[in-house]
Amino acid sequence: MNSNDLKSKLIELLKEVNCVKFGDFTLASGKKSDYYVDIKKATTNPKVLKAVAELTAELCEEFKENGEYENLKVAGVELGSVSIATAVSLELEKDLLIVRKKAKSYGTKNKIEGELNPNDNIIVMEDVTTTGGSVLKAVEELKESGANVKAVFVIVDRLDGANELMEENNVRFIPLVEVNELKE
Amino acid sequence: MNSNDLKSKLIELLKEVNCVKFGDFTLASGKKSDYYVDIKKATTNPKVLKAVAELTAELCEEFKENGEYENLKVAGVELGSVSIATAVSLELEKDLLIVRKKAKSYGTKNKIEGELNPNDNIIVMEDVTTTGGSVLKAVEELKESGANVKAVFVIVDRLDGANELMEENNVRFIPLVEVNELKE
Repeated sequence: MNSNDLKSKLIELLKEVNCVKFGDFTLASGKKSDYYVDIKKATTNPKVLKAVAELTAELCEEFKENGEYENLKVAGVELGSVSIATAVSLELEKDLLIVRKKAKSYGTKNKIEGELNPNDNIIVMEDVTTTGGSVLKAVEELKESGANVKAVFVIVDRLDGANELMEENNVRFIPLVEVNELKE
Repeated sequence: MNSNDLKSKLIELLKEVNCVKFGDFTLASGKKSDYYVDIKKATTNPKVLKAVAELTAELCEEFKENGEYENLKVAGVELGSVSIATAVSLELEKDLLIVRKKAKSYGTKNKIEGELNPNDNIIVMEDVTTTGGSVLKAVEELKESGANVKAVFVIVDRLDGANELMEENNVRFIPLVEVNELKE
């Protein structure tokens, strides 16, 4: 399947598991929203995980053309994105990295699980992006370790600033699906 | 491949990634040990994850015979076992559950991510067991939610009490590999 077909399949599965609900919602921030994303329904479902992995693998083909594929590794941020990154790691047969989040109150830095070498090319998998602040922190953590972050892939982008934030920070941002594509 | 061949393959891969080092070590507890298990080398490697998933799937065949397979789900404990449970979830095409660990100081209970229904049959994946105390806590958490915990699978059992603790608590314990099987 080409990437358009894989994307259609993913959209169908995301609708099937009801990961986005439309209606009137008040978010934790107090902000009103006409939809609610329950991404855990996606990231704990093996069919969705497989579809995400297949589409991401297809989109990673370009790294083969420019010689960046060999040193590729797949990072996921604790805790919500570890299952996604694992599915992609298995699909690509590339090593997995886990970026730990630490509570700020402990004053500790983030830590990276898995073997990270200075010349590694990293793709970062994320479950859902709103402003993109959380995944940008993980990207910076990876860059500080000397790795090349090639792209951030997100299953569902809520179209709430992540694309702009990534652009400002020169991070390539690839939403697999945008939230408005999930409206029936 | 039958389970013996799959186990031999897993042992070979675990040796290849050097997840157990033999020598003189002082553990965090102050206890002396003649080996050291760096299980992250296993749980971030897609070949090892695939081998763990294949062996676990073979050992789950018995659940088909007694009708327990249909409602099967795969649980992993935060953070170390999420990649293992994801690999098994993909192999079996069964839903994933993630058991969160919360710092005791917050006084909050563990929480389970993913859809858990009272009649679900759960297999719990663990990376490494020493006394087994940590995985037993996750098992109890799952049981409190009304699920049937059918078995705990662990990649490497350190033979340090986990088997006995599980037996005392009537939890079926299935080590894929025991640490002494990794000695050359």
